[in-house]
Amino acid sequence: MSETINDKPGAIRPDFAKQDGLIAAIAQCVHTREVLMLAWMNEEAYDETLATGRAVYYSRSRKKLWRKGEESGNQQVVHDIRIDCDRDAVLLWVDQKGGAACHEGFSSCFFRKMTEKGASHEVIGERVFDPKAVYKK
Amino acid sequence: MSETINDKPGAIRPDFAKQDGLIAAIAQCVHTREVLMLAWMNEEAYDETLATGRAVYYSRSRKKLWRKGEESGNQQVVHDIRIDCDRDAVLLWVDQKGGAACHEGFSSCFFRKMTEKGASHEVIGERVFDPKAVYKK
Repeated sequence: MSETINDKPGAIRPDFAKQDGLIAAIAQCVHTREVLMLAWMNEEAYDETLATGRAVYYSRSRKKLWRKGEESGNQQVVHDIRIDCDRDAVLLWVDQKGGAACHEGFSSCFFRKMTEKGASHEVIGERVFDPKAVYKK
Repeated sequence: MSETINDKPGAIRPDFAKQDGLIAAIAQCVHTREVLMLAWMNEEAYDETLATGRAVYYSRSRKKLWRKGEESGNQQVVHDIRIDCDRDAVLLWVDQKGGAACHEGFSSCFFRKMTEKGASHEVIGERVFDPKAVYKK
């Protein structure tokens, strides 16, 4: 087949310039393949994730690095990092400590399913932890 | 457990106001759970996806609706739509017609795996089709 991937030899890097310094990062459970969450990384978060093997994101609301699990203890141990064709998104295969990625206590942030062509929805996830007990604010 | 999900009864909608009218949309294969791609939806794309059962995105580069497969024929038949906790991302479970979501001809856009802590990478995907044959430009 013809070759159209324009990779230079060696390392490729995400293109942080495209989206105000940020790339999208999808976390997927390495064991079950459940999609856990979508978050953002700036270059510092990406490099720290690669260096430490723990998922580090950039919180757009708090405007600072977000070392996943720093408050809840539920770290994400990174097994694999994949980068997409246009280099503005990465896919992490993670081992989610504590079993829940979502701050609402569900394994996945995608715990609501749209029904009736979007006219309704149902909660399909089961709570792994009680957010009020984990985030003692 | 305590209830902290602030859903009103009935339908919830994505929050399009948060990101310049766009939400992130992850497409995942309904059969294999492979994460296929990350794209964007504006409200019109979201509503058309719900109404038609085919994935419709918004192309930020072309600044218009992108009915996935309109050029390649490789539509995505949508089985499930899930919405995340803060309502700025959706997860689609799709049946990817033609077997490849990526315009480069791979099943997934995430066909490159970072190695050596990001100092190198390898192509892990296998090409399903030849992009030059499908996109006749």
